[in-house]
Amino acid sequence: MSALRVPVLAVIGVGLIGGSFAAALRRAGGVGRVLGIGRDPNSLARARELGLIDEAVSAAEAAQRADLVMLATPVGSVGRLLAQMRPHLKPGIVLTDAGSTKAEVARAARQALGQDIGCFVPGHPIAGAERTGPDAADADLYRDRNVVLCPLPENPPQAVDLVRLTWQDCGARLIEMDVQLHDRVLASVSHIPHFLSAAYMAQVAGEPDSERRLGLAGSGFRDFTRIAAGSPEMWRDIFLSNRSAMQAELLAVRAVLDQAEQALAAGDGAALLQLLQRAACARRDWRLGSTES
Amino acid sequence: MSALRVPVLAVIGVGLIGGSFAAALRRAGGVGRVLGIGRDPNSLARARELGLIDEAVSAAEAAQRADLVMLATPVGSVGRLLAQMRPHLKPGIVLTDAGSTKAEVARAARQALGQDIGCFVPGHPIAGAERTGPDAADADLYRDRNVVLCPLPENPPQAVDLVRLTWQDCGARLIEMDVQLHDRVLASVSHIPHFLSAAYMAQVAGEPDSERRLGLAGSGFRDFTRIAAGSPEMWRDIFLSNRSAMQAELLAVRAVLDQAEQALAAGDGAALLQLLQRAACARRDWRLGSTES
Repeated sequence: MSALRVPVLAVIGVGLIGGSFAAALRRAGGVGRVLGIGRDPNSLARARELGLIDEAVSAAEAAQRADLVMLATPVGSVGRLLAQMRPHLKPGIVLTDAGSTKAEVARAARQALGQDIGCFVPGHPIAGAERTGPDAADADLYRDRNVVLCPLPENPPQAVDLVRLTWQDCGARLIEMDVQLHDRVLASVSHIPHFLSAAYMAQVAGEPDSERRLGLAGSGFRDFTRIAAGSPEMWRDIFLSNRSAMQAELLAVRAVLDQAEQALAAGDGAALLQLLQRAACARRDWRLGSTES
Repeated sequence: MSALRVPVLAVIGVGLIGGSFAAALRRAGGVGRVLGIGRDPNSLARARELGLIDEAVSAAEAAQRADLVMLATPVGSVGRLLAQMRPHLKPGIVLTDAGSTKAEVARAARQALGQDIGCFVPGHPIAGAERTGPDAADADLYRDRNVVLCPLPENPPQAVDLVRLTWQDCGARLIEMDVQLHDRVLASVSHIPHFLSAAYMAQVAGEPDSERRLGLAGSGFRDFTRIAAGSPEMWRDIFLSNRSAMQAELLAVRAVLDQAEQALAAGDGAALLQLLQRAACARRDWRLGSTES
C-alpha cells in the first residue's frame, strides 16, 4: 500500500484547470503517476513535455488505473465521459470535477453512473485566468482560492475526504454547500456578470458607429467588458446548464435596474446617490478571496 | 511678450485631473506661474508642497491674472465658477474644462458667460485612475490618451488652438466632435457601464445572503464591479447631466438584453452562442487608447 495520497491521478482535460491541479498536487508530493486524457493530441503532447502528465491514456484506461480522476472539461461533457468510464471503474476510485455549475452536472452524473454515483464528488474551484491550455497551467493557481465541494448524499465520507485533502494540498480553501445553493450563488456572482457584460459588449459592437465608440472607451470600459472576451462555447454551456438559477437572478437584477432607471428618468438625484452609495460601499469593502461562509 | 505657451496657468480643482494637467504642462516647459483654486485648504497646501501650483488664489483673481484656466471640478460646479469669474476676465483669457459631459456644461457656460462664451472651449480628457487628490497627480496621466474637444461656434480659432496645443504638450491625442455627439458616445462607453455595474453591485449587496455571495465572487466579479466603487457624488452628477443620452442608450442595451434573456429562456444555444461570439470578437479586437475617429 502506497503512502502517497493519490498513487495514480488522472486528469481529463489538461489545460489551465486540470493542468494546474496536476502541477499543484505533484509539487505537494501527494501523487505518483499522472495520466492525461484529452481530445487534442497536441495538448496532450505539450502537457507531457511540461511534465504535467506522465502519459496519455483513454478515459476507459484511466478508470481502470486511477485512484482519483479530475474531470476538467466543459460541463456539457461530464455525463458522456462518466458513461465511458463506468464499465471500467477500479474499486475504490474517486471521481470529481471542476465545472462551473453543479446541479446539472450532478444530474448527468447520476444518469451516467447509476448505482455507482457514490464515487463522484462534485466540485468547483473558483479560480481561472485569461490564458488557456497546458502552457497556462500554474501550480499556484489555487493557492488561497475558494473551492466549493457539493457532496452528494450517496458519497461515502472517505471519498469526500480524499477530494477535500487534495484541494488542501493545492493550497485552496474548502467550502461545502449543496448543488442548488452553489448554482444560485454562482449565478449571482459569476454567470450574471458575464451575461450582462456580453450583452452590453454585443450592443456596443452592433451599433453603426461602434468604431467611434470603441475608440473613446477607457479603463472603466476595459474592466467592465474584460469577461466578455471569454470562451463563447464555454459560457453558452454554463448559461444553459444553469438556466433556472440565472433567470431567477436576472429578475432580481432587473428590479434594481428598473428602480435606477426610474430615478434617472425622474431626475431623482437622492435616489441615484443612495443606489450609488450602496454599490460603492459594498464594493470598497469587498476583497477577492475573502469568504464569510 | 513671453515665449511661454501659457505664462500664467490657473487650475480650479487641484486633484488628479487638474494636478496632472499642471504637472504635465510644467514638465513640458510651456507654463510660467501656476495658480491653484479650490475649496479645500489642505488640498491646496499639499498641491503647493508637491510643486503642482505656485500659489492659491480665488477664482476671481485667477480670472484677472491667468492666460488659461482649466476647470477640473465636478460638472455641476462649472456654471457657478464661470459666473464668479466673468466680471474679472482678463482680455484674451481662454477657459476650458475636463468634465465628463459636455452639452450640459456648454449650456451652463452660455448662461454664466453670456456674450463672453467665446473664451470657453469645452473639453474632456478620457483618462482617470482610482486615486484622487493632489498626491495622485501624474505628469504622464494623459500620455497617449484621448482628449475630446467640443469647440463652440463662438470660439475664436486661437482659443481652440491654445487648448489643443496644451493638451498636445501633455502627450494626449486630440479628437474634435460636437457636444451632443460627445455625450452620446460617452453615455455608451462610459456612463452606461457605470450605471449597470452599480445597479448590479447594489442588487448583490442588498440580498439577504450577500456575505455568502461576495465570499465566492472571483476575478470576473472583481473587474466587472471595479467601477462601482467610484465616487457616488461624481457619478450622480454625471448621470443627471447626461440623462437624455443615457436613457436613449439604456433602451438599446435593454433590447439586446431582452434578446439574450429570451434565448436563455428558450434554451436557444445557437442564439446565445451568436451573441457571445459577437461580444468576444469585438472585445478581443479592442485595445485601450486606440481610436478610429
